Amino acid sequence: MTYHVQINVMPLKDLLDPQGKAVMGGLVNLGIKSVNDIRIGKHITLEIEAESAEAAKQIAETTATKLLANPVMEFFEIEVVG
Amino acid sequence: MTYHVQINVMPLKDLLDPQGKAVMGGLVNLGIKSVNDIRIGKHITLEIEAESAEAAKQIAETTATKLLANPVMEFFEIEVVG
Repeated sequence: MTYHVQINVMPLKDLLDPQGKAVMGGLVNLGIKSVNDIRIGKHITLEIEAESAEAAKQIAETTATKLLANPVMEFFEIEVVG
Repeated sequence: MTYHVQINVMPLKDLLDPQGKAVMGGLVNLGIKSVNDIRIGKHITLEIEAESAEAAKQIAETTATKLLANPVMEFFEIEVVG
């Protein structure tokens, strides 16, 4: 069966997020002051051929750990959407 | 009230996604062949001070249109999560 899996890789909460800071500066330049915080990470969608949702999640976790996220700076969340 | 809003900016379906292709190559090198497709975009989380969820979504849409997404290559989805 084909499972659709989403992974979000985000900068760790305690670390500076230079991309987010840059966009925040852009917002101020646009006159928008109601945004308190903005953080920018990666959104990855995968189509995985697997026997169960659990197996698909396992493959996504391997992918995230080995290829997508740098644990020194980032954390990730995995969701099997169907 | 403070609203938490998520924006996903993804490469358009018909366009090549070189980042995704690179990760796909990495998966093959790792011996994982069960991933059929992988696309990589941006995941943005915002904390927005607004009077209603609708107003928060409006601010997120302005942010995405003016600062985050390139409409020639990308589309975006907005979700107010609470």
